[in-house]
Amino acid sequence: MERKLIKNLNASVGETVTIKGWVHRIRKLGKIAFVIIRDRSGIIQCVVDTKEINIKGLKLESVVQVSGEVKKNGGGEDNIEITMSSITFISEVQHDLPIEINKEEIEVNLDTMLNNRVLSLRNLKTNAIFKIEAVLAQGFSEFLKGEDFTQVFTSKIVAEGTEGGTELFQLKYFEKKAYLAQSPQFYKQMLVGSGYERVFEIGHVYRAEQHNTQRHLNEYVSLDMEMGFINDEKDIMQMEVKLLKHMLDKVKIECETELKLLCVELPKIEEEIPSIPLPEAIRILKESYGKENLDKDIDPEGERLIGEYVKEKYNSDFVFLTHYPASKRPMYTMPAEGGLTHSFDLLFRGLEITTGGQRIHNYEQLKQSMINKGLKVDSFEDYLQVFKYGMPPHGGLAIGLERLTAQLIGLRNVRETTLFPRDRDRIAP
Amino acid sequence: MERKLIKNLNASVGETVTIKGWVHRIRKLGKIAFVIIRDRSGIIQCVVDTKEINIKGLKLESVVQVSGEVKKNGGGEDNIEITMSSITFISEVQHDLPIEINKEEIEVNLDTMLNNRVLSLRNLKTNAIFKIEAVLAQGFSEFLKGEDFTQVFTSKIVAEGTEGGTELFQLKYFEKKAYLAQSPQFYKQMLVGSGYERVFEIGHVYRAEQHNTQRHLNEYVSLDMEMGFINDEKDIMQMEVKLLKHMLDKVKIECETELKLLCVELPKIEEEIPSIPLPEAIRILKESYGKENLDKDIDPEGERLIGEYVKEKYNSDFVFLTHYPASKRPMYTMPAEGGLTHSFDLLFRGLEITTGGQRIHNYEQLKQSMINKGLKVDSFEDYLQVFKYGMPPHGGLAIGLERLTAQLIGLRNVRETTLFPRDRDRIAP
Repeated sequence: MERKLIKNLNASVGETVTIKGWVHRIRKLGKIAFVIIRDRSGIIQCVVDTKEINIKGLKLESVVQVSGEVKKNGGGEDNIEITMSSITFISEVQHDLPIEINKEEIEVNLDTMLNNRVLSLRNLKTNAIFKIEAVLAQGFSEFLKGEDFTQVFTSKIVAEGTEGGTELFQLKYFEKKAYLAQSPQFYKQMLVGSGYERVFEIGHVYRAEQHNTQRHLNEYVSLDMEMGFINDEKDIMQMEVKLLKHMLDKVKIECETELKLLCVELPKIEEEIPSIPLPEAIRILKESYGKENLDKDIDPEGERLIGEYVKEKYNSDFVFLTHYPASKRPMYTMPAEGGLTHSFDLLFRGLEITTGGQRIHNYEQLKQSMINKGLKVDSFEDYLQVFKYGMPPHGGLAIGLERLTAQLIGLRNVRETTLFPRDRDRIAP
Repeated sequence: MERKLIKNLNASVGETVTIKGWVHRIRKLGKIAFVIIRDRSGIIQCVVDTKEINIKGLKLESVVQVSGEVKKNGGGEDNIEITMSSITFISEVQHDLPIEINKEEIEVNLDTMLNNRVLSLRNLKTNAIFKIEAVLAQGFSEFLKGEDFTQVFTSKIVAEGTEGGTELFQLKYFEKKAYLAQSPQFYKQMLVGSGYERVFEIGHVYRAEQHNTQRHLNEYVSLDMEMGFINDEKDIMQMEVKLLKHMLDKVKIECETELKLLCVELPKIEEEIPSIPLPEAIRILKESYGKENLDKDIDPEGERLIGEYVKEKYNSDFVFLTHYPASKRPMYTMPAEGGLTHSFDLLFRGLEITTGGQRIHNYEQLKQSMINKGLKVDSFEDYLQVFKYGMPPHGGLAIGLERLTAQLIGLRNVRETTLFPRDRDRIAP
């Protein structure tokens, strides 16, 4: 008999069906037992007459095939169960589980959860996280494709340290030294100038940062986009508003079950997200929250407080911070008056999830900016070529996928939204 | 005036429009000059009265804004041109170009083309390659999502060498040694067993192979999928047929211009792709092509000849080779009778573009297979965990994106279908 998915059994009440999946939970009640089966689509209760069917040796998480009749049970309208007529082992578990995964919450610490990743992911809530993450990434791709962006795949092995400001992982590339790319920044700019005008990339980036925090990973997925023929950074910000709207709408439609399970309240995005110049944000933090010593930039606590401020004042989960000082931005950032730049961050519920802005497109200006930052122009020859031969005004942004997912779901640690996280201490599993 | 894209100008005959783009070609003819402008969507001829508009200093590849009236010209129905009324520099080129890019073909060798990648990509044909490649990747994603697969992102930094048989790039990960993943093989299997059942990944993989051939890269994009609850490798093969059909159909619909430009004839895929057991293929090569000395596997020339054979005999551009011997396959491959395996390769026009098959799902059997291959079971502890706690029968495949694209377009070297290739000698640009 053909396998049916559990989520589709509602249409089979009164029929005898076959399902396949894992033994999620077993409850014995005298001569009756309840075996909950889980497949990729959901869980269902199977009622077993233990005089007819022997389930004595049945261990949790065994993979089984179950046949039986689908019946309505006493509960709500959608409540169905299977009266089991047979059970066959597909893959038998011999050992007890190292962690309990069939409760609503996994009650182990993060390290234990990650050490037993293949099991912890079987917990319904933990599993749901990555279904949402996948849809966010697909929403990013889908929206930008619709806006005439070309998806690109650029090398993660690079010859030179790139933007500076970040430690890089070093690699032995045959006889040469190489590094893991900290971002596709240079490549995406080069590809705008290669005639694609609008490109996006979904790929891993690498930061050899020594510190271990809840919001940092040494390897993460960067949702990158870059577009040409813009007026200034506002074009990028407007595009991001539409982009995020699309991504969240897609999650709303495609992840109804997962959102419910994780009790996620989706943020509303209006046509415009509030925008606060950084110097103004620093003033607000000082005057309204007594926060001193913010030297031209905002620390994580400041981000959190600004998040609270805009939630209260504008009822928005998002806020753009703009007008960052040139001293705090990379050399390719388009300068603005007064030592400021045409760049921005986007905070989501008090955490930075995007950095973006307009870039310098003039060859001489870019070289001068490198010199001003104390960088050697010679090291950037490959990057600079495109600026010599006709580069349109352009800009872009990068969204951290794990951070976005964590903030959306309300998880504190980005490791929880990474299947196999890499941090200061962890390279396995 | 709002910028219009060149491909949309057909709808604007008789109107005055503004376009933005690169100066693709300049032809002077007495008092008249023809300036061809190129944007991301196409090219158009602009007619210039040189007494009215001075274009003396205009260099190729400058980025300009042009306004003028769209007119039908003498040619075919769709032939339009712009009578230029003004031209403004957006980004001026001061230097002559190091390579000529506005001819139909770029007439430079591969190294020069790659060294000047940002310019060579402006050649219309070269540019079109990566639009097709992007759509292939998106078709892969779209089809599998429709089949209830979850997209995953797994780490490319791994603690252990994985499958063996390939050299790995080594990395300094803080105090530890680590490697760049040669494939997401272990992770995708682990995720099938983590309850997702069906997963796919689009990501870079790394092979530190010393040899430099037309069909190898040291970093490439692998289209990976893995699915649970299969009967055997035939389920994977059937899924791949439908998958490729979808990918090619998508290219047909979305890349009409690019396919025409590159003179690509799309292969037909029938419901079934011919399938030849490897021992039979070796016999054919020996008897029909006089090819000797094939030791249980086929070399590149053999692949090419089998490609010719199936084209002639079955009029198919594709052929599955099946029944590979266990000695030529990794330890996780499901064995079949007579020292063979439940695995396959897919050849497309005589080049292997996929390896796939059913995997071992039994814990004890997998450990034994590792021992038989001379591997240390202890090194695979993280991988093995999922097999201990309920792993369904499963299998999967990987498609090399650059190879698929190269074969589809008819390019001999996979470097031509890689934006920024990495090989034995190249880590830049």
